[in-house]
Amino acid sequence: MELAIVILAAGKGSRMRSALPKVAHPLAGKPLLSHVLDSARVLQPATLCVVYGHGGDQVRAAVPATDVAWVEQAQQLGTGHAVAQAMPEVHEDVVLILYGDVPLIRPETLQRVVADVREDQLVLLTLDMDDAGAYGRIVRNEQGAVQAIVEFKDANAEQRAIGEINTGILACPARFLADALPQLSANNAQGEYYLTDVIAMAVAQGLTVEAVQPEFAWEVDGINDRVQLARLERIHQQVQAEALMRGGASLMDPARIDVRGTLQCGQDVVIDINVVFEGDVVLEDGVRIGPHCVIRNARIGAGTVVDAHSLIDGAELAEGCHVGPFARLRPGTELAAGARIGNFVETKKVQIGPGSKVNHLTYLGDAQVGAGVNVGAGTITCNYDGVNKFVTEIGDGAFIGSNSSLVAPVTIGAGATVGAGSVITQTVPDQQLAVGRSKQRNISGWTRPTRKN
Amino acid sequence: MELAIVILAAGKGSRMRSALPKVAHPLAGKPLLSHVLDSARVLQPATLCVVYGHGGDQVRAAVPATDVAWVEQAQQLGTGHAVAQAMPEVHEDVVLILYGDVPLIRPETLQRVVADVREDQLVLLTLDMDDAGAYGRIVRNEQGAVQAIVEFKDANAEQRAIGEINTGILACPARFLADALPQLSANNAQGEYYLTDVIAMAVAQGLTVEAVQPEFAWEVDGINDRVQLARLERIHQQVQAEALMRGGASLMDPARIDVRGTLQCGQDVVIDINVVFEGDVVLEDGVRIGPHCVIRNARIGAGTVVDAHSLIDGAELAEGCHVGPFARLRPGTELAAGARIGNFVETKKVQIGPGSKVNHLTYLGDAQVGAGVNVGAGTITCNYDGVNKFVTEIGDGAFIGSNSSLVAPVTIGAGATVGAGSVITQTVPDQQLAVGRSKQRNISGWTRPTRKN
Amino acid sequence: MELAIVILAAGKGSRMRSALPKVAHPLAGKPLLSHVLDSARVLQPATLCVVYGHGGDQVRAAVPATDVAWVEQAQQLGTGHAVAQAMPEVHEDVVLILYGDVPLIRPETLQRVVADVREDQLVLLTLDMDDAGAYGRIVRNEQGAVQAIVEFKDANAEQRAIGEINTGILACPARFLADALPQLSANNAQGEYYLTDVIAMAVAQGLTVEAVQPEFAWEVDGINDRVQLARLERIHQQVQAEALMRGGASLMDPARIDVRGTLQCGQDVVIDINVVFEGDVVLEDGVRIGPHCVIRNARIGAGTVVDAHSLIDGAELAEGCHVGPFARLRPGTELAAGARIGNFVETKKVQIGPGSKVNHLTYLGDAQVGAGVNVGAGTITCNYDGVNKFVTEIGDGAFIGSNSSLVAPVTIGAGATVGAGSVITQTVPDQQLAVGRSKQRNISGWTRPTRKN
Repeated sequence: MELAIVILAAGKGSRMRSALPKVAHPLAGKPLLSHVLDSARVLQPATLCVVYGHGGDQVRAAVPATDVAWVEQAQQLGTGHAVAQAMPEVHEDVVLILYGDVPLIRPETLQRVVADVREDQLVLLTLDMDDAGAYGRIVRNEQGAVQAIVEFKDANAEQRAIGEINTGILACPARFLADALPQLSANNAQGEYYLTDVIAMAVAQGLTVEAVQPEFAWEVDGINDRVQLARLERIHQQVQAEALMRGGASLMDPARIDVRGTLQCGQDVVIDINVVFEGDVVLEDGVRIGPHCVIRNARIGAGTVVDAHSLIDGAELAEGCHVGPFARLRPGTELAAGARIGNFVETKKVQIGPGSKVNHLTYLGDAQVGAGVNVGAGTITCNYDGVNKFVTEIGDGAFIGSNSSLVAPVTIGAGATVGAGSVITQTVPDQQLAVGRSKQRNISGWTRPTRKN
Repeated sequence: MELAIVILAAGKGSRMRSALPKVAHPLAGKPLLSHVLDSARVLQPATLCVVYGHGGDQVRAAVPATDVAWVEQAQQLGTGHAVAQAMPEVHEDVVLILYGDVPLIRPETLQRVVADVREDQLVLLTLDMDDAGAYGRIVRNEQGAVQAIVEFKDANAEQRAIGEINTGILACPARFLADALPQLSANNAQGEYYLTDVIAMAVAQGLTVEAVQPEFAWEVDGINDRVQLARLERIHQQVQAEALMRGGASLMDPARIDVRGTLQCGQDVVIDINVVFEGDVVLEDGVRIGPHCVIRNARIGAGTVVDAHSLIDGAELAEGCHVGPFARLRPGTELAAGARIGNFVETKKVQIGPGSKVNHLTYLGDAQVGAGVNVGAGTITCNYDGVNKFVTEIGDGAFIGSNSSLVAPVTIGAGATVGAGSVITQTVPDQQLAVGRSKQRNISGWTRPTRKN
Repeated sequence: MELAIVILAAGKGSRMRSALPKVAHPLAGKPLLSHVLDSARVLQPATLCVVYGHGGDQVRAAVPATDVAWVEQAQQLGTGHAVAQAMPEVHEDVVLILYGDVPLIRPETLQRVVADVREDQLVLLTLDMDDAGAYGRIVRNEQGAVQAIVEFKDANAEQRAIGEINTGILACPARFLADALPQLSANNAQGEYYLTDVIAMAVAQGLTVEAVQPEFAWEVDGINDRVQLARLERIHQQVQAEALMRGGASLMDPARIDVRGTLQCGQDVVIDINVVFEGDVVLEDGVRIGPHCVIRNARIGAGTVVDAHSLIDGAELAEGCHVGPFARLRPGTELAAGARIGNFVETKKVQIGPGSKVNHLTYLGDAQVGAGVNVGAGTITCNYDGVNKFVTEIGDGAFIGSNSSLVAPVTIGAGATVGAGSVITQTVPDQQLAVGRSKQRNISGWTRPTRKN
């Protein structure tokens, strides 16, 4: 059985009050539509079609995809009309209809929906609710078979008392849908073609309609405004947090972690409060992340400790490192085993050798630092002349005195020492001491400034 | 119809365990009493009277107001007695009674209370509760008309089953109140004059008593201890967060934002977790605020990005700036379009020109920086001689080498360059290079220090 | 009546997915088992016995205790077997059985359990639940006397409807227990010796079984995985937060504070969001802690303000100090009254005199700073020569110019001044000016670097 999935993503989303189309808004750092696409792809559909409307260019820019057939719905004439636009792309047996603004639908649920489609059977995803509000009700006959979906405003009191509602997600034989869609009528209050009307047609034609329910109610929650977006963001984060804990990570507060991408944790990883992960992050066994950190696209080796208030972006840290507090590791930072980066230190495109220490108030950019090096407080690599960037090399075992300026390109030899407060502009040979500073003079009889004006 | 509003604010609030009178405690950065005053002012009362008792000086210091008649209640003899102290200030037709420790009452609700007062009708604000606890019950007759307020301890079983309770907020004709208050008796267990007793008097005199309910139960929640204070703080923050989202701002977590003052957001503003806003803040269209920032009294231009862990206080940022992470902008900081302030940088009383960059580990105080300037890492403006502060001027297109000290007052000309590690004490003319550092000497045969002791 | 307390702590806790035994996992920074031990110690038992199994060395390492008799249960043969291992240590009248993975049991509750033990009476701790799940049910006779504990899987429908469940915590006469344990049978599905079977024995012998309930359901919550661990962590933090508020501290958000140790607060302490306390911390009257701070093992004097994003560890701050934002005070830091430590400043083993200021981008290590000193931005104490650490002394009223390097051991005299950008290697006598920097040269005709490559 071949599958086509059609995702309706044409709604403007005016309650978002945004210049961005609704389905391009991010949840956990990824556009709503991408969440739906990623779930859809798990089913390996032969065709994956998105029906867009408002802001199509923005949507496609936000969701670059080579496996998607993009179909425009130029006029907003209802869900039935939207699906009809997609039908020329559909050449498979079964069609599954999803929604770009229902981002948390799980592939497991979709597989259950699709699995039961037969030549003579549709499958609806429905939900039992305590308070069904204004959703369309699922009307069943005495045998319990689904007969129709009744919109709330058309429902009588008895129907309104029904707790089972239509989620809009359905799967059906493509042939049936191809026949049914042209028969839809816009002869209703909104003047729209409703996809839900195909259910009654199916029943009339003698097809059966099965109803499947999701495991979690939030799978079928749609987003119409930023309050709902924030609500689903939190549910998504809670689900991820629980999965991390069940996998063996300790979270100091599961309500205060944000994972916006992928996070792989080894055994006995500990993540303190308010840490934000973005992109792809790997934390090996025993890594500890302190409170208030932001970690983006990084691999952190076993046993490494990242202290409070550190930002790590595009960096690789080997095992047993210690970073922070207040450290900022920018892209291209590579720390070898046991390296230490301390407070108020910024690194960018640097390799730091095993056991080297950069502990305080330092900027290292475009630098290669050997093993066992000590970079004193206040050291600055002067890597930029206003137009070009240059490299600083520091050999194994070098000792860079505090408040030094290393004017790149420059090389500090192995075992070399730089005196505190020096400006280094030329190579320091191995083992030598370089000093570039003035002699201290003490001046007696000096009088302190007095208050002016 | 002219209105007088009397706010009872004399309670000591001993359960707060504080040296500060209860109504002076802040909620969202503003004293409880100020919240009530601000809501009261929306009704434009001709008289706005506060009855204070404990710590009157502290209350008046915390709530400076020129439109308030302050009346002391020297002895705590009950709410009726408190209102009686205020009556000499009341010259209007209608009196509305509020409470200084019920801070979240909404003006819309008060308007509904006041609107229905007639010469022969009082209006009570009541609340239907699931569990009415020990609150006073609203007793109605068979026709549904309010007959009396029965204190819980005086209520029989049937009365205790009533779910409608007295909030204490009421409005009534001033003439009635002036007549009724002197008739109150303190002949009860507490020996206090209860304002609620006027209801029975009104009914006895043939006045009708209408009951109005607030839209939200939290509007009538009072504060007696810090647990309740924190609870209302959270409700208030949640209400503000929802309003921001409905207005078109994205909040990464509505439960982790604090707005202690006013926050105006343009379209598509994004606010990450744990941001604290204080004072008056304006974020224009498309501004993005990273996690863990604190923003106080600032205007931030369209499209500007404030990265994680930045503190902004008393600053104006034009459009397209980039600030942080770990930046601290202090009062008097003005950034022109496209300016960049990077990590571990502090600014105070500085103007930064368009496109200029101050990217790392820098202190700029009392400085005027032109357009297209690059301030190297570790640069310090030495603006203070121990008693006086002086200004540093840096011309357009200047390049300040890293680890420079700019000893103010000093001027760096347009297009000038300062060599890394220089101490600049005199004017650098336009386009010239200034260097103030020693020549590097390499010393061979130097032996490293050995462990002492 | 002498008391022995036996704590069962032999479970592996495989659902924790950890290399650490379950009872060694921390809650609020303290191993689960330590929480139970600390509650047990309040009852002053003559014997305090822990039955360990998996990872005994790790458990003892995590929970160093000199008052505990450690007993190994080499094979996991059930709770009855575990208690039997402990009996040789028990020489008292009464035995109380606790669990190492039920960390939040309160001493008040345990005292109530123990108080009712008689020669002919056991006491069980039970709990009434709305949904009793798979817990063992408490079966009572028509007179309401406890008859037996029926495991869920052995319970009939009527018994499953019982809402009172067994928590496992019980106290009984030691003599009874010594007699009963050897009679336990492992003739059941799990092949284990169940402690609960002693209840039926007691009833059969004519002893009465009293049931006591805890005040809070979370007291008897056990931990089997990290989701449950995180849940109890949050409950514990919430309980502590409420106690702080009732004691007179204002918390900006009680859901965003973490106390991992002891926190003593004076009157009118204000703690902003996301502050983490570790170890033993004392905040005196009127202390204000800004958002996102981490405070560990510190005493902070009355009226001191700690601004946002500060880390304080092992420090003593006198009254009226101002620290931060972005300050890091490391162990051995002592601030006298009115001292100020500003942004991007790190201190370690330093004494700072009254009123002295270290406001920006500074590293002070191993330094004694007098009163009224001003340490300029970018100052670095060069306290480390690669193997040794040396002390810097700064006299009262000294003024250290910005970007200075103080090469220890070195002394700056009282009233002395150091010029900006100086490297100080020798004593500066009192009142003198020391300068160690080159003269500025301006070079005209210099051409800016051009883009290479």
